[in-house]
Amino acid sequence: MIRIGIYGYGNLGRGIECAVQQNSDMTLVAVFTRRDPSTIKTVFSGVDVVSAGSVADYADKIDVMILCGGSATDLPVQTPELAKLFNVVDSFDTHARIPEHFANVDKEAKASGKTAIISVGWDPGLFSLNRLYAESILPEGNSYTFWGKGISQGHSDAIRRIDGVVDARQYTVPVPAAVESVRNGENPELTTRMKHTRECYVVAAEGADKARIEQEIKTMPNYFADYDTTVTFISQEELLEKHGGLPHQGIVLRSGSTGANKENTHIIEYSLKLDSNPEFTSSALIAYARAAYKLNQKGDSGCKSVLDIPPSMLSRKSNEELFSYL
Amino acid sequence: MIRIGIYGYGNLGRGIECAVQQNSDMTLVAVFTRRDPSTIKTVFSGVDVVSAGSVADYADKIDVMILCGGSATDLPVQTPELAKLFNVVDSFDTHARIPEHFANVDKEAKASGKTAIISVGWDPGLFSLNRLYAESILPEGNSYTFWGKGISQGHSDAIRRIDGVVDARQYTVPVPAAVESVRNGENPELTTRMKHTRECYVVAAEGADKARIEQEIKTMPNYFADYDTTVTFISQEELLEKHGGLPHQGIVLRSGSTGANKENTHIIEYSLKLDSNPEFTSSALIAYARAAYKLNQKGDSGCKSVLDIPPSMLSRKSNEELFSYL
Repeated sequence: MIRIGIYGYGNLGRGIECAVQQNSDMTLVAVFTRRDPSTIKTVFSGVDVVSAGSVADYADKIDVMILCGGSATDLPVQTPELAKLFNVVDSFDTHARIPEHFANVDKEAKASGKTAIISVGWDPGLFSLNRLYAESILPEGNSYTFWGKGISQGHSDAIRRIDGVVDARQYTVPVPAAVESVRNGENPELTTRMKHTRECYVVAAEGADKARIEQEIKTMPNYFADYDTTVTFISQEELLEKHGGLPHQGIVLRSGSTGANKENTHIIEYSLKLDSNPEFTSSALIAYARAAYKLNQKGDSGCKSVLDIPPSMLSRKSNEELFSYL
Repeated sequence: MIRIGIYGYGNLGRGIECAVQQNSDMTLVAVFTRRDPSTIKTVFSGVDVVSAGSVADYADKIDVMILCGGSATDLPVQTPELAKLFNVVDSFDTHARIPEHFANVDKEAKASGKTAIISVGWDPGLFSLNRLYAESILPEGNSYTFWGKGISQGHSDAIRRIDGVVDARQYTVPVPAAVESVRNGENPELTTRMKHTRECYVVAAEGADKARIEQEIKTMPNYFADYDTTVTFISQEELLEKHGGLPHQGIVLRSGSTGANKENTHIIEYSLKLDSNPEFTSSALIAYARAAYKLNQKGDSGCKSVLDIPPSMLSRKSNEELFSYL
């Protein structure tokens, strides 16, 4: 049995707790939290909830610690720190800072002899893998990633910070004509505006100036100014009822050509349709936790990304059983 | 530069010749053939064509030999034999015999200190990878593979063996309603007949009994009897004009559930649309040839499948450049 720890208990931590139940070679040892453990209600009963301060006591009791904190401030500190004691897996998703995070984690994991796998999930994660596979096989061509339709937490937060906004949800939506053009092998050049639209559902405070809020959203640099954005004001009840879930979707496409005169076109498409973004990410983290464990058993140490992990390491199947995939 | 050899020169060998041109870290040393080398016309001029009997003279001149023979009789003999002298890559695709082929190649490659990667292509190959990734991440659910619309060489050959048939092409076609049901997360149970139909285009000899030919096709065990099959008689000219290419397509789908009560459904879909089946397979072989070379440089030996290869090994990018995929 691979002994799993969960460090941080939000949507992702709850997803890991559920995912462990689906993997018969794993057992959950404890959930670690910076909050008062007595205030934490786990999904299943009988789960040990422990103060984060006591984590060092578990160095010999946990094979892989799965970090479930946020990328902005939690993981940059926690992943290197916990790699001193445990094999670790995280879902660090600030794309631009991955090389720096990788180096920090690598240093600690090499020193402790532990294995770390960072930036696990779907993007970065499975989408990264598919971009790499597709481009390695079809070196001449174009790659496209479309996100949505799904809720962007960062964009929803940005709207909530506007004066007069009580609550908000923002959906990123691919432009169907752009996706179709790529699928047809037309290799379009697509600007930011041509790829995605943004749909905002906003709860305004009573008496707030809705025209001003809409204007502030639509002109917000980086977040909305480069997109065709629609703003719909709704009640808090409607927001929770119709936009309360965390679904997401996305597509990675590669259009490439081969042949003596590049006369043949090939389209590789990978897509995800997820009812629950955090639960799917948790399921990916659990599979890579298995890989971290197996690699460390083989004497490996240091930091890896999904690009470095042999696919067979994710599976609980034996070498003989793996032939069934071929 | 990775020095490539091509062993066997048909559609796949020609595809490799083109693919080498698209990979600036590779160079083609020679094409090996069992035919009279003077009768071989290569795609590009200036390519050395050498008798297969002289292959041992190239042991120090080629880094990876790509085997382009057939799975029925060529590869079971050639891949183990050439693994005595070279790192080798093949596209062995007789699914049921892969474990046996793997063992034979592994024995020779371990003895010679060479690296071998077998069963590279799209199925087995990229589809195998996607079945493994998807099932490892969503352990509870169902997997589906649909092939087509595309030409099946084996089924076309089977029709050609019928008395009175001059030529034939057979398309395997997925049933749209079955694909949609899987995409909708309905987890259907699908019989053979519910998944694919078979479309046959047949050139009959003058005066042949077409009704008898059609009946023989539709009742042929294993190949057609379990499918809804249509037979269309056309002229040789029309066959070559409209059905002369080798396009193919396919889809791998995984529908899985997560959550405390398995209440959330996720769909992972991987699809390929290929103008040229052999050229795409060649492109995959070239990427795995790079991996075989890199692994061997690291001291690896023995046989591997695509499931065992770290994705980053397929790329010509540096470790720093690989971060761009994340």
